[in-house]
Amino acid sequence: EGPLPRNRKRTVSAVLSGSLPAASDSRLSVVWTYAAPGGGAKMTQVTAVSADIVLHNAFVVTMDGALTVLRDGAIAVVGDRIAAVGPSADVLGAFPGAAQTLNLAGRILLPGFVNTHVHTSQQLARGIADDVDLMTWLHGRIWPYESHMTEEDSYASTLLCGIELIRSGVTCFAEAGGQYVSEMARAVELLGLRACLTKSTMDCGDGLPPNWSSCSTDDCIQSQKDLYEKHHNTADGRIRIWFGLRQIMNATDRLLLETRDAAQELNTGIHMHIAEIPYENQLVMRMKKIDHGTVTYLEKIDFLRNNLLAAHSVWLNESEISHFSNAGVKVSHCPASAMRMLGFAPIREMLDSGVCVSLGTDGAPSNNRMSIVDEMYLASLINKGREAYISGTTNPTVLPSETVLTMATINGAKAVLWDNEIGSLEVGKKADLIVVNPFKWSMLPLHDSIANIVYCMRSENIESVMCNGQWIMKDQKIMNVNEEEVISSAVKRATALLARAGINLPERMNYL
Amino acid sequence: EGPLPRNRKRTVSAVLSGSLPAASDSRLSVVWTYAAPGGGAKMTQVTAVSADIVLHNAFVVTMDGALTVLRDGAIAVVGDRIAAVGPSADVLGAFPGAAQTLNLAGRILLPGFVNTHVHTSQQLARGIADDVDLMTWLHGRIWPYESHMTEEDSYASTLLCGIELIRSGVTCFAEAGGQYVSEMARAVELLGLRACLTKSTMDCGDGLPPNWSSCSTDDCIQSQKDLYEKHHNTADGRIRIWFGLRQIMNATDRLLLETRDAAQELNTGIHMHIAEIPYENQLVMRMKKIDHGTVTYLEKIDFLRNNLLAAHSVWLNESEISHFSNAGVKVSHCPASAMRMLGFAPIREMLDSGVCVSLGTDGAPSNNRMSIVDEMYLASLINKGREAYISGTTNPTVLPSETVLTMATINGAKAVLWDNEIGSLEVGKKADLIVVNPFKWSMLPLHDSIANIVYCMRSENIESVMCNGQWIMKDQKIMNVNEEEVISSAVKRATALLARAGINLPERMNYL
Repeated sequence: EGPLPRNRKRTVSAVLSGSLPAASDSRLSVVWTYAAPGGGAKMTQVTAVSADIVLHNAFVVTMDGALTVLRDGAIAVVGDRIAAVGPSADVLGAFPGAAQTLNLAGRILLPGFVNTHVHTSQQLARGIADDVDLMTWLHGRIWPYESHMTEEDSYASTLLCGIELIRSGVTCFAEAGGQYVSEMARAVELLGLRACLTKSTMDCGDGLPPNWSSCSTDDCIQSQKDLYEKHHNTADGRIRIWFGLRQIMNATDRLLLETRDAAQELNTGIHMHIAEIPYENQLVMRMKKIDHGTVTYLEKIDFLRNNLLAAHSVWLNESEISHFSNAGVKVSHCPASAMRMLGFAPIREMLDSGVCVSLGTDGAPSNNRMSIVDEMYLASLINKGREAYISGTTNPTVLPSETVLTMATINGAKAVLWDNEIGSLEVGKKADLIVVNPFKWSMLPLHDSIANIVYCMRSENIESVMCNGQWIMKDQKIMNVNEEEVISSAVKRATALLARAGINLPERMNYL
Repeated sequence: EGPLPRNRKRTVSAVLSGSLPAASDSRLSVVWTYAAPGGGAKMTQVTAVSADIVLHNAFVVTMDGALTVLRDGAIAVVGDRIAAVGPSADVLGAFPGAAQTLNLAGRILLPGFVNTHVHTSQQLARGIADDVDLMTWLHGRIWPYESHMTEEDSYASTLLCGIELIRSGVTCFAEAGGQYVSEMARAVELLGLRACLTKSTMDCGDGLPPNWSSCSTDDCIQSQKDLYEKHHNTADGRIRIWFGLRQIMNATDRLLLETRDAAQELNTGIHMHIAEIPYENQLVMRMKKIDHGTVTYLEKIDFLRNNLLAAHSVWLNESEISHFSNAGVKVSHCPASAMRMLGFAPIREMLDSGVCVSLGTDGAPSNNRMSIVDEMYLASLINKGREAYISGTTNPTVLPSETVLTMATINGAKAVLWDNEIGSLEVGKKADLIVVNPFKWSMLPLHDSIANIVYCMRSENIESVMCNGQWIMKDQKIMNVNEEEVISSAVKRATALLARAGINLPERMNYL
């Protein structure tokens, strides 16, 4: 799909580890000389090379280790990689023969956002479970919906969700776990996104829909290995396959531990909902005879590893936060969904103890906006407000803008175990980036650009999105699918699916 | 300004109180025969009359007393009033000679939103006070900003703010209190909005900026009476003047009570920040020797009336909620601002005890999004989440969508004492309405339209806004000002104002 041959990924890996690239693409041999460790913003000696695109005259928020911001910066892209980041004049001088040179006229360049918890198969269910209690949510709405979904529905849902993700500046997401991973992969490949896809597995538990049965432990593991074999590292390396566990009440110890070992063996990650509601912790305490919830138990059975992405993680005590920190477990904080249904996660405490906290939207029927931009705003507000219950007053200094932006970018990349290639704008990393137009009613005045990115920016300020060196949205046009057709098809499928599942929503007002 | 002569308002008032209109506009004499008490959605006998505009083929959410929704509805507008609301076929049949007939192709028609707490003069200060403690917020940022603001700055700020208000579907707002009410009025008149404008008054209190001095009590009252005389009921009746009190720590008892009496005498409202932070209550308890905060004291001195709009009102106990309920005090709930700086207001409890709770954005440096659409989303999320601290778990059934939509519309109208003319789409009311296009990535599928309006709708789904029978935004174009010029001028003024005020913001990252 990209302009360079498929074997290029291996070539680049070699470069990043120190040696010069193979001669397969002569443009690279010069470019990679910038890629000194700890380098980044400052350009040094430059010889003329060709780039596919140079974006210049931008406010570049690199999110590199030094949090470098270039007031008048530029980025050169060669193939799927960032070849240079530096002052506009230097980069333009270095790449006089770029195939395309784009003057961004002061717009903001950011790394693409990483959404670390999203149920792409639930997009067709937006609005089916609002304002109902948790049991109605699950048994009356979500399970009937999910258990009546077809493979084609899942494909349509992921396409529709992907459009919203792209429009909110997401270039990489972690699927929270659905049933039809091959269909998700098909949609992701088409949209041009990057993703860690996951099958939701359950080998025990009560109350599942009649047309589902929980798999055997062996089937759970094997089906995921098969998906890994089939899809991992496909779509020019944009797709990775992870292991998925729905939650502790639907997983035997054997499934937990074999998942741990299988993921380690395949060098991939595990995505699991952990400590979502007080009831979960209470049940675990009763069943497993321990003194505090899910995380305590997972620590006890030696399940926690640094390739575990824990979604929500609202109900953790201090020692459980330490378990996460010590094991290097990553957390996906989903502020909207938590506020609606789960509670206030101890995000400040997790960050203070060194846990890598990232941001997720959760699925459409839990939120229902699927915008990581809105989640940034919410994360800051909610965690400031939460302090009112810790100390008696809110604390507006908690989770400042730069921290929230870190959560949505480089922490997201770490959470999906991909920070060696994404999450910041640095030489040698993949060209996953977004162009923000702040010169509109919603973001002005721009006294504090970083604050305004978190507090004022709207999905609609995002003009263009590049993933893996390719524009997947340009000037607010989705590039790789016909958006109207996707929407139209998805809406039809959504209506049919609800009818099939027998989900009837009560009317909230008096319809004539 | 409008198509009809200025004396029309008086004519219409006469009609609404029962008699036939004067002959000045022959169209009205027929139209007002629909305006039967308790009428609304259902059209009865109709004779052909001319309308200025008929909007048909819409999903009409009337927000009338019966919460009537017309799946295929229409609205006829004559002058500044709604002349008919009913099924499309009936309304079209009744107004064959309408000057303009607009097929909305299934779009949603809603009453214009009412933003009941917004500091329009603070729009130029967006981003100057993020992530700082409350004392820095006030003394280091907001007071220097406000005390260095000129009249022209205030005009520019209100214009800029007004654009964001209109884009989020607001047709009426309650100014929270600034210094230059005449400049606000000039901007509101130009933009075409409806507003209750208020001067912020203080006759005591420590720590005010050196270039401010608190007014004498008499001056505080007289200056507001002068503003009332000059601006009340101007701009075709779109502007009303209210009395304003900054907060209890800056008001003597005499100012409180004379404000109460003056507002009653002039039949207008009072806008005041009440019970914002625990410290306020503690101070009031100490100074006034009472057993609980501001509301207890205001009740004690007989200040509470049904024309009082209390902003924030976060720290109320059960008996204080009863005081509000018994007196008919209205509340402006500002979820974003409360989360950042104040705490969790007992909104469910207030609603349960019959308090009229509406929604506000607060000012730009407290939020910083100025979208009542986002506040609807936040109000629902935050009040569901708040239950986690009341009962141990969140309660997703709290503040359902229909309640939140009520808060943003008819409750807003009640809060600004204008519900006889705005807040719902009913015959005889002012034509303040918005057209929402839900057929986009952000709102589909539309399984539950009311829920999607609250949880998914974005400012950007609002296509057109009508206030007082005039389009003030049409197809996302702001009609009465040149948006680019307003923005450009405001940004220049904002930069100059910060320099003049000596406000320097620390850099959050490493700028090159």
